[in-house]
Amino acid sequence: MSAVTTYLEENKSRQLAELIEWLHIPSISTLSTHKDDMLAAADWLAARMKEAGLEHVEVIPTDGNPLVYADWLHAGDDRRTVLIYGHYDVQPVDPLDEWETPPFEPDIRNDNIYARGSADDKGQVYIHVKAVEALLQSEGALPVNVKFIVEGEEEAGSGALTAFVPANTDKLAADVCLISDSHILAPDQPSILYGLRGMWKGELTVTGPATDLHSGSYGGAIHNANQALAELLAALHDADGHITVPGFYDNVRPLSDEERAALAKVPYGEKELLEESGAPAAWGEPAYTVVERTGARPTLEINGMWGGFTGEGFKTVIPSKAHAKISCRLVPDQDPRRIGRLIDAYLQELTPPTVSVALKSTQGAKPFIAPLDLPEMKAAAKAYAQVFGSEPVYTREGGSIPIVTVFQQALDAPVILMGFGLPDDRLHAPNEKFHIPNFYNGIKTSIAFMEELE
Amino acid sequence: MSAVTTYLEENKSRQLAELIEWLHIPSISTLSTHKDDMLAAADWLAARMKEAGLEHVEVIPTDGNPLVYADWLHAGDDRRTVLIYGHYDVQPVDPLDEWETPPFEPDIRNDNIYARGSADDKGQVYIHVKAVEALLQSEGALPVNVKFIVEGEEEAGSGALTAFVPANTDKLAADVCLISDSHILAPDQPSILYGLRGMWKGELTVTGPATDLHSGSYGGAIHNANQALAELLAALHDADGHITVPGFYDNVRPLSDEERAALAKVPYGEKELLEESGAPAAWGEPAYTVVERTGARPTLEINGMWGGFTGEGFKTVIPSKAHAKISCRLVPDQDPRRIGRLIDAYLQELTPPTVSVALKSTQGAKPFIAPLDLPEMKAAAKAYAQVFGSEPVYTREGGSIPIVTVFQQALDAPVILMGFGLPDDRLHAPNEKFHIPNFYNGIKTSIAFMEELE
Repeated sequence: MSAVTTYLEENKSRQLAELIEWLHIPSISTLSTHKDDMLAAADWLAARMKEAGLEHVEVIPTDGNPLVYADWLHAGDDRRTVLIYGHYDVQPVDPLDEWETPPFEPDIRNDNIYARGSADDKGQVYIHVKAVEALLQSEGALPVNVKFIVEGEEEAGSGALTAFVPANTDKLAADVCLISDSHILAPDQPSILYGLRGMWKGELTVTGPATDLHSGSYGGAIHNANQALAELLAALHDADGHITVPGFYDNVRPLSDEERAALAKVPYGEKELLEESGAPAAWGEPAYTVVERTGARPTLEINGMWGGFTGEGFKTVIPSKAHAKISCRLVPDQDPRRIGRLIDAYLQELTPPTVSVALKSTQGAKPFIAPLDLPEMKAAAKAYAQVFGSEPVYTREGGSIPIVTVFQQALDAPVILMGFGLPDDRLHAPNEKFHIPNFYNGIKTSIAFMEELE
Repeated sequence: MSAVTTYLEENKSRQLAELIEWLHIPSISTLSTHKDDMLAAADWLAARMKEAGLEHVEVIPTDGNPLVYADWLHAGDDRRTVLIYGHYDVQPVDPLDEWETPPFEPDIRNDNIYARGSADDKGQVYIHVKAVEALLQSEGALPVNVKFIVEGEEEAGSGALTAFVPANTDKLAADVCLISDSHILAPDQPSILYGLRGMWKGELTVTGPATDLHSGSYGGAIHNANQALAELLAALHDADGHITVPGFYDNVRPLSDEERAALAKVPYGEKELLEESGAPAAWGEPAYTVVERTGARPTLEINGMWGGFTGEGFKTVIPSKAHAKISCRLVPDQDPRRIGRLIDAYLQELTPPTVSVALKSTQGAKPFIAPLDLPEMKAAAKAYAQVFGSEPVYTREGGSIPIVTVFQQALDAPVILMGFGLPDDRLHAPNEKFHIPNFYNGIKTSIAFMEELE
């Protein structure tokens, strides 16, 4: 047994106990009442980083919640530098009554820790802190230079970090960024996430008459804004689930045969989709598998829709206005701003003379994809295989992590998404959990990755 | 000058002052905090009925708000009996800050009384009380037998009266029912409303996945409930505004040439529609005029629609459920229950396997139409022409007054809708008003109608 393996074995319970202590701090970034908890969670992490042997530990004040920085840079100039990113803020806990145990009193059941933030993202951040600690405390050195940057606003838009990264490219300069804020497919099936969808968001307002009208007096001669909105929204997809916006697919990079083969190995299909979602049947583009549809194909979703009288009872109004919140998940090389313009143009073209429409684009994030043959990707694959005992499969995720492209662009470094969550961790939902064997295997994988990068 | 004309001239200001006093009572039937005001408004009316010379004046308690009954039955068995209906309850006043003067402090500006309930319906009920008063006080008798039944729940579903009418057919027995709860086209253009649309209402729920899902993880492979709802709703009309529900038009009585000719005389078209509504263009069935579309053709409206995240900001959810409140205005001889069944069957047929739908029918009212050649209709036309100086035109209204068919069926008597409001009275809205010349002309028209019925 190597020194680090022995160290890990001997310190297992303490490392887990520390994570549990951190999970007690209700660091909910979107609720201003938790301001003190944000500071407490940042300070707690900084203290553990110092104990681990990291240097230059800083709690950096920002306009929002502080950033936590630390590094260890003694591997030598000829060694790679890894920037590890994570976040210490967590999602709100509503609906509280659906939690089996309180969200900030971590409970261990069936090899899982149940607590808000356990998987997203404290447990995954802490893996790397403990990996560094194990190497420094047992062997006195790391095989690579390491920097940590941990934010407290990931669930609230990453405002401070998005400004900090481009303004501090020297401080954060690295050869590779490592992010553990995602999941593998199963405890015995590691996977590497090499693509993330980007995002365009917009709010659509349809206006018919100047004010709400009585449907008795005007019904039949005035275009109801709800109906006009429904007609517009229904026209945005064809019967096969293709998006009908002209030009929408222009810049979609076709899936290569290699990628399709890699994605076909993901043990997830319609059966799993329906079990997880409870939907009566799968939907979408028939020419693509569900893994491809949710990871490698762009989408257009109506996240919210409202108009007219929506309270209890009935009001027979013809609404003046109806609204929809629409978002698109984008894939390389779609550009959020261009997509917004195309959707706007198409909606204007579809709009009949009986109503007017206005589309307000609200936010965008570019899609992300990492080449499968990057040396850092190969190092990650070897590390996973070594610890989990099976080769990782390659996946693309439907979600967006906007900070990924911020790092990629500002630091000109590849980003490796090395997740240790599981698909059923219930992120953002009641009874969030983190699988304890993944915590321990994560620490070993982090160590193996650093060694593979040597 | 006849005795009654002189009486009216001498008592003008007092009659208006009384109405203003009644309008001070905030008799809002849908708000339980106004329970005492309902009683006060009923008692006030009963006291004025006694002063007018009416007999058997009763404030009849019900499970809801009291009914006010009164009669004068000395015209003789060979004379007609007229049952006059109205309501003393009013709509809520929200949004209060849009009122130029407080809703229960009646204000006279430009020959109008501005107050909640001025046109709907206190002003119109009071016309008939003052007509009876003028005849009884000046001539000592009425040319017909008269009964009044005035309710306090018209704006809240007419529950008590709907039960009372069929259980008291002897007490309410009449040859004709007279209702003033509608409007004429202009102060110099009287009109007779001979048709009212009926109503079907239902609430539609579309269910996709079992819970809201993250659009990043599932978008592209799951049918979004908002989108499915939009697709279903968009399919309920064709491009010409026809309702596509199979069988929907089966029992629609075609407009006769006589009716179309009568409706063509209504001085209201697209220009007026657009001015009133502020809509950018008219909508609906091209083969029908806007007067026909809003009065003589059935409609299907989406009064309310909602699903997913509708708050401030963005949540990229795929909603599990989406909802719509749908109502149909119906024309003779459509039956609300059959229409509900047809819509349900069609929605089920349209529903793809990716979602399920449930339709809950909530209320129905049958459409109403009165033959244009009824003697009572002719008497009304003569009365209007005599007072307003021009022949009335015949209109059909898009709205529904469910109590009309209750009277018609329980009492087996024709219903005459003799309105004295104006199209711009802002019923149910801020700054409701009643045109004072219509009040005075209304009293004269009521007297003339009774005389014509002789």
